Amino acid sequence: MRLRNKPWAPEKIAAHPELVVSNPEEWKGKWQQRFQNDNPIHIEIGMGKGRFVTEMAKQNPHINYIGIELQASVVVVAMDKALEAGVDNLQLLHVNGGDVTDYFEPGEISLLYLNFSDPWPKKRHEKRRLTYKSFLKSYETILPKNGEIHFKTDNRGLFEYSLCSFSQFGLVLKQVWLDLHAVDMPGNVMTEYEEKFSAKGHPIYRVEAVFPEKRLSHELKD
Amino acid sequence: MRLRNKPWAPEKIAAHPELVVSNPEEWKGKWQQRFQNDNPIHIEIGMGKGRFVTEMAKQNPHINYIGIELQASVVVVAMDKALEAGVDNLQLLHVNGGDVTDYFEPGEISLLYLNFSDPWPKKRHEKRRLTYKSFLKSYETILPKNGEIHFKTDNRGLFEYSLCSFSQFGLVLKQVWLDLHAVDMPGNVMTEYEEKFSAKGHPIYRVEAVFPEKRLSHELKD
Repeated sequence: MRLRNKPWAPEKIAAHPELVVSNPEEWKGKWQQRFQNDNPIHIEIGMGKGRFVTEMAKQNPHINYIGIELQASVVVVAMDKALEAGVDNLQLLHVNGGDVTDYFEPGEISLLYLNFSDPWPKKRHEKRRLTYKSFLKSYETILPKNGEIHFKTDNRGLFEYSLCSFSQFGLVLKQVWLDLHAVDMPGNVMTEYEEKFSAKGHPIYRVEAVFPEKRLSHELKD
Repeated sequence: MRLRNKPWAPEKIAAHPELVVSNPEEWKGKWQQRFQNDNPIHIEIGMGKGRFVTEMAKQNPHINYIGIELQASVVVVAMDKALEAGVDNLQLLHVNGGDVTDYFEPGEISLLYLNFSDPWPKKRHEKRRLTYKSFLKSYETILPKNGEIHFKTDNRGLFEYSLCSFSQFGLVLKQVWLDLHAVDMPGNVMTEYEEKFSAKGHPIYRVEAVFPEKRLSHELKD
């Protein structure tokens, strides 16, 4: 995401500790306490400007949402959206990298969203893709048995890669969409990116994948 | 496939028993004898007019090919192509349905192709799709451990379905193409359908899937 530098962003974020959490390690295992209910928690890794997670929170008041983002300059945009929405089932995490297992206890998260993640198209950057096996291992840890990843992207290469990465890790594909907007998918909330790219006629790809109770991983030779 | 009725087709086919096999059960376990060598055998289920399997046979003389087809009216077209090619590593099977395990011993086939199979789009016809789990079970039987299915189609719904069917059966996705003609794939032989549909700008989908040595199947609820 190409963004202006916003030197004032950290200060603005710091003014809303009730919404933007900068010390997520301290809430590990206690997120439902923070939400003051025992509703399931869904997270979005890489929320960007936050439209998806904010809109989901508005539409689904009985689910708690956490949007995670590295860049302060987009966290502030998401923060403004969340403040305007005025929902109490949404928290934003501004983190400096790290691993989701640092912030969440095993099984603490019910569902994990990845939307339009950075494709890192070069082979030498494969390990940075959010669907690389090391990330899948972390996701598996914080999700329950039969927990799901819901992933969408307009990037063909990343989607092709991710289907294989999921499969080789032992995730099971529950449903796949190769042109999401060509069919009626009730409840689809578009991200900023999705609206822009689908308007240009690019297909949007989507998959729901399940961590089964038992899984086998397979290292395939090229 | 919409085709003219060709009442003369069976008679024409019967004139070439050296090329078109109508009693494949009798060759079960003996296909390499028929080819008079011990080269690996690759099959295409639903060869249609036979361009793919004939071209593959021409390009790969050290592999034996078997094209399988139900409809006499297309078998004759494939037969003419194969006769013209004059290759000795190609056999055509004209069968009345039945199951590949009736024609091949376990492990007798090294690789299985499905190209532009009938999509059977209605849910009540799911069991007829050549990527339905009962077919996968038969394919697994005739292939060796780590045997592969190579499947391509222009039908989005069938491809979406097949990725999930493969995954839930325990097949592992080795590689996926969501727009085959957008990339350079050396050795891609186009079928008659593929040429027609890709010329219209439709993406061609392709997957290579592996039957791993150990697999788990997963019945997912909707």
